Amino acid sequence: MDVTIVTVGRPQITLNVTRGAARLLADLGYAPLAEVSLPNGRRADLMALGPKGEIAIVEVKSGVEDYRVDRKWHEYLPYCDRYAFAVAPEFPREILPEEPGLLICDGFGGAVLREAPATPLAPARRKALTIAFGRLAAMRAAGVAATSLEG
Amino acid sequence: MDVTIVTVGRPQITLNVTRGAARLLADLGYAPLAEVSLPNGRRADLMALGPKGEIAIVEVKSGVEDYRVDRKWHEYLPYCDRYAFAVAPEFPREILPEEPGLLICDGFGGAVLREAPATPLAPARRKALTIAFGRLAAMRAAGVAATSLEG
Repeated sequence: MDVTIVTVGRPQITLNVTRGAARLLADLGYAPLAEVSLPNGRRADLMALGPKGEIAIVEVKSGVEDYRVDRKWHEYLPYCDRYAFAVAPEFPREILPEEPGLLICDGFGGAVLREAPATPLAPARRKALTIAFGRLAAMRAAGVAATSLEG
Repeated sequence: MDVTIVTVGRPQITLNVTRGAARLLADLGYAPLAEVSLPNGRRADLMALGPKGEIAIVEVKSGVEDYRVDRKWHEYLPYCDRYAFAVAPEFPREILPEEPGLLICDGFGGAVLREAPATPLAPARRKALTIAFGRLAAMRAAGVAATSLEG
């Protein structure tokens, strides 16, 4: 009997986890937008807008190395009410910090393993981010390949 | 010599004027979203979000009959800061009311013939509309065929 072992590469894991996290966010009532460049130059893998205007950012980590080379998660906090990591089921989650939320996702959906604590945005920044999110999303819907959130 | 007269049908005019008006809005700095159902059941042909959060609604009128059978333009005013009609160059614009703005558009762009007067939304409604716009736009960007703006 021939056995074929299929190893899933890093880009494919990122794609799967991102898709699953987007579906999970939608299930939770958040409208997600992928690849959003923030005013400070960081790029959010997913930014999502909740029914009451809550802003969530989710960072996808495809593997240990991906996490180790990019520990700048604090830099996302000024742009959201809640921040979470999203990883595949096989990711060694004990290496992740405990402060952010944690989503376990595959290509079809996901589950909230640890809810992100809420640290509400200041009103002026929330307003600016909400407007910028809406404008970027509308441009995306119109087929414009825009990525940057305006100031 | 054979002469072929091409008459452009109503749906094609609507499509052209809508596309041109969306481009004009984008040129003016507004991010447009097509076919947005409002909480009162009316459907906006284009709703657009400006850089400071200004909300504009544009109604496309393909011809005289289209305008005569649907004179409910006042019903859009509670959902925007500025309201305008968009029509093709050959539309008899003298039949339109003078209060709203007026955009003359073809399939490639347009011009502002009369600016819409600003009647600013109340803060609570503006906030709710901005959030709903962003959520609808993000769902559209994700390929979900949503049309309704939430309450």
